[in-house]
Amino acid sequence: MSARILIVDDIETNRRLLEARLSAEYFEVLCAADGQEALDLCVEQTPDLVLLDVMMPGMDGFETCRHFKNNPVTRHIPVIMVTALDEREDRIKGLEAGADDFLTKPLDDVALFARVRSLLRLKQLTDELRVRERSLDTEGEPVLDVEVPSGAHIAVVAVDDRTAARLAAKLPDDVAAQSFGDPRDAVQAIGAGVDLVVVDLTSKHFDGLRVCARVRSDAATRNTPILAVVDPDARDQMVRALDLGVNDVVTRPVDAGELAARIRTQLRRARYADKLRDRLDESLELAVTDPLTGLFNRRYLASRLDQAAEGFARVGEPLSVILFDLDQFKEVNDKHGHAAGDFVLKAFADTLKSQLRAIDIAGRFGGEEFLVILKDTAADCAADAAERVRAAVARQDFSVKATGDTLNVTVSAGVAQMRDGETVGQLLDRTDAALYDAKNGGRNQIVLSRAKAA
Amino acid sequence: MSARILIVDDIETNRRLLEARLSAEYFEVLCAADGQEALDLCVEQTPDLVLLDVMMPGMDGFETCRHFKNNPVTRHIPVIMVTALDEREDRIKGLEAGADDFLTKPLDDVALFARVRSLLRLKQLTDELRVRERSLDTEGEPVLDVEVPSGAHIAVVAVDDRTAARLAAKLPDDVAAQSFGDPRDAVQAIGAGVDLVVVDLTSKHFDGLRVCARVRSDAATRNTPILAVVDPDARDQMVRALDLGVNDVVTRPVDAGELAARIRTQLRRARYADKLRDRLDESLELAVTDPLTGLFNRRYLASRLDQAAEGFARVGEPLSVILFDLDQFKEVNDKHGHAAGDFVLKAFADTLKSQLRAIDIAGRFGGEEFLVILKDTAADCAADAAERVRAAVARQDFSVKATGDTLNVTVSAGVAQMRDGETVGQLLDRTDAALYDAKNGGRNQIVLSRAKAA
Repeated sequence: MSARILIVDDIETNRRLLEARLSAEYFEVLCAADGQEALDLCVEQTPDLVLLDVMMPGMDGFETCRHFKNNPVTRHIPVIMVTALDEREDRIKGLEAGADDFLTKPLDDVALFARVRSLLRLKQLTDELRVRERSLDTEGEPVLDVEVPSGAHIAVVAVDDRTAARLAAKLPDDVAAQSFGDPRDAVQAIGAGVDLVVVDLTSKHFDGLRVCARVRSDAATRNTPILAVVDPDARDQMVRALDLGVNDVVTRPVDAGELAARIRTQLRRARYADKLRDRLDESLELAVTDPLTGLFNRRYLASRLDQAAEGFARVGEPLSVILFDLDQFKEVNDKHGHAAGDFVLKAFADTLKSQLRAIDIAGRFGGEEFLVILKDTAADCAADAAERVRAAVARQDFSVKATGDTLNVTVSAGVAQMRDGETVGQLLDRTDAALYDAKNGGRNQIVLSRAKAA
Repeated sequence: MSARILIVDDIETNRRLLEARLSAEYFEVLCAADGQEALDLCVEQTPDLVLLDVMMPGMDGFETCRHFKNNPVTRHIPVIMVTALDEREDRIKGLEAGADDFLTKPLDDVALFARVRSLLRLKQLTDELRVRERSLDTEGEPVLDVEVPSGAHIAVVAVDDRTAARLAAKLPDDVAAQSFGDPRDAVQAIGAGVDLVVVDLTSKHFDGLRVCARVRSDAATRNTPILAVVDPDARDQMVRALDLGVNDVVTRPVDAGELAARIRTQLRRARYADKLRDRLDESLELAVTDPLTGLFNRRYLASRLDQAAEGFARVGEPLSVILFDLDQFKEVNDKHGHAAGDFVLKAFADTLKSQLRAIDIAGRFGGEEFLVILKDTAADCAADAAERVRAAVARQDFSVKATGDTLNVTVSAGVAQMRDGETVGQLLDRTDAALYDAKNGGRNQIVLSRAKAA
C-alpha cells in the first residue's frame, strides 16, 4: 500500500535519510523543517501519515502534534512521533498530545514500516466513511470531538488467570475489566459488547496471535481495537501482530501510564469510526423515511416499485399494489386542527403495519395517501389484505388525547395487479382509478381494478 | 490482516494441507468437499475469500464459481481458482466465470498470501460501503448487475514508446487506449478520467512500481485499478506490486485473451465500488434536501442550527436567523392551483439563493416558511440581507408558464440574533414573533426582534 508521508525534522540530514528509506519502499514523501511548515503543508497537501521529530527549535513536536489534532482538517491523519531519547514521560506526553505511536531513533525499518502499514490500513477504512460523511456538510469535518467516556469494557487475555489478573490490574481505574486466563473462554466471551481487547503475547505456552486473528476475523468484533503486549526484543512478533490487524503494541514491562494513554488513543479512534458509521446509517435511514409516520417515503416507494416491476418483467412473479386514502381527512384537519390530523396519520400508519406481512412494503405516498407494494402476490390476495386494513380502521376508535375528541376515521383503497407490458405509471393510474371508484361508491370500501388490459 | 477463508477441494489431503498452511498464517479456515457444500457454507458463514479447486466430480470449479457470482449474497466474495493444469483456455474460462485469480498447483505460499492479502484489503474497503448501503434496503444486495460498458479509458505505461505501443496493441478493441513510453508523462497524464492503468514492470531500465505507487497515493486515482505485467519468475516483484496496491498481475508473454478477461474483472470491481459510493452519496444528499426546492430540509436546518448555537456558546461568534414566510400563499394555491404554488416556492428558493452569501445556510422550514442561518453575523447585517431578499421578491414578476398568470408575490420576514443563555427554541420563538409582527404590520416587510433578553 503506497501513500504520502510527511517527514518533519529540523535537521536536513535526518530528513534526507528518512526520505531515502521511505522512497525505497515506494512511499511518496513530503518534508518540512519545522512545526509551522508542517502544519501548512498538512492543510495544503493532506498527507496520509506524519513522522514527527520531537526536539525541534521553536514549536517542538508535542506542540506541533497538538495543533494537528486540534485542527479538524488534519485531525484524522495518524502521527508517529520520533525521538532520540526514550524517556517514559516523553512517551506518555507524546501519546497524550494525540500521537498514534512514539518510536525511538535509530528507527528500525521493519518495525517502522509495519507500524506505518497498520496505521495506513486503518486510515484508509475511515477515509471511505469520512468522504461520504463530508457530503452531508458544507464546511469540513463534521465529527469534531469524540470524547472517551469512562466505563469502557476491556477484555484482558493472557496465558493463565494470574498473569491476566496482574495485567488487568494495570488498567486505568475508570474501565470495566474482565480477565481471561484461557484463550478458549476469551474467544467465546469477546463479542460486540467489548470495547477493547488487550492480549499478552509474551508467553511461549500460549499463542496470543490466535486470539487476535479470531477477534479480527469475526464479524461482530472486526473493528474492535486490539492492543498487544510484547517483549521489547520480539520484533518479528510485533510486526506480525500489526500485520494481522492488531491496532497497537506496548512493550514489557508494561507501564500503567503508557498503557492508559495507548488505550485512550485506541478507544478514541474506534469511537470516531463508530460515530461516522452511525451517522451515515442514520442519514441513510432518514433518506428513505417519512418523518411523521416512520413509514417509507414516496421516493423510496418509487424506487422499490421500479425494482419490483423489473422482477415481474424478468421472472413473471405476480405484483400487486394497494393505494389507501383516508376518507374526508381535510375535515379532520379543519375541524380538529393539524395536531389531530397528524395523530390520525400516525395511528393509521400503525394499523397498516400491524395488518400487513413483514415483506410488504408500505409507505406514505403523500398527504393522506399510503401505498403498499405486495410482491409475489395476486390481486385477490392483495384485495383481502386491503379489506383487512379497511375493516381494522373502521373498527378502531381514533381518540385524540390532547383534545379528548373521538374521531370516526375510515379509509378507501384501490387495488391493482401488474399486467404484462404495463409500465409502473400505468399500474398506478389504474390503482388510482380504482381508488376513485371506491370514493365515489360511498367511501370506506375497497375496489379492485378489473378493467381489461390496454 | 486476518480473515475467514473457505477451501473447496474434493480431496481431503489437499484440504488438510492448505488448511494447515493458512492456519499457520493465522487465517480462520472453513472447508467444503464439493461445490454444493461450498455454496451452502458461503451463504451461511460468508467467508472473506474462497480458494476453489477446478477439477471436482459433479459440479466443477467453473460452475461453482458461476453460482457464487450469480448469487447476490455471495457475489462480492473474492474467489481464487486453483488448478494442477496450467492451460491458457482454463485460465480464461476461470476468469470469465468470475474468478479474481487463477493459480497453479503446487501453490507457492508467498505468492498465494500476497494475493490473498491484496484481495482482502480491497474487500474490506467495499465491505464498509456495502454494509452502509444495505441499511437502505430490506432484502440484501441492492447493486445487482454491474456491466462493463465498452470505451473504458486505459493508460499503458512501459519503458519506451515502442514497448508501450506493443502492449497497448494487445488490449481489447472496445477500449480507448493511450500509451506512455515515459513514466513522467504517464504520472502527469493519469488522472480521474482514466479507468484502468496497465504498467509493464519487466524492464530493468525503468521502475514501473514507482508509477504504481504514484497512482495509488494520489487522491484522484486512489481507487483506479492497476494491472501490472511481470516476468513469470519475478515472484518478489509480483508480491511487492500486490502489497503496494496493484490490483492484478499478468505474466509475460501477455496473452490478449487473458489480459482482456483480467481487465474486465478489474473494471467490473471498480465500477461496483464506484456505484456503491455514488449511491451512498446520493442518498446522503437526499437525506438533507427538500425535494421541491433543492434547499436544505427542516431536519438538516435544525441540526446545523444546534451546531451553530454551540459555536456561539463556546466562542461567542454572533449568530442570527431569518424566518421568511410567503405572503398570502394559500390564495396562490387556491386560485391558481398547486402547480402554481410549487412554481412560486421554487422561484422564491432561487431568489433566496441568489441574494445570500455562500456561507449562509438556507432551507425550507416547512410549507411556505424558509429559514436562513447566518453565522458570524450580527442582527443588523442579517436584517439587511432579509431586506435585500424581500425587495428582490417584490420587484420580481412571478409568471407561471403553464397558465400565463402573472402573480404578485411578496414575502415577510422575522430576524433575530441569538442572545447569551438563550436556547435555540427561544431564538426561533422570538424570530417567529417578529415574523408575526411583520405580517400584522401589513406584510411585505421585515421586522427585527429587539425585545429585551429574558
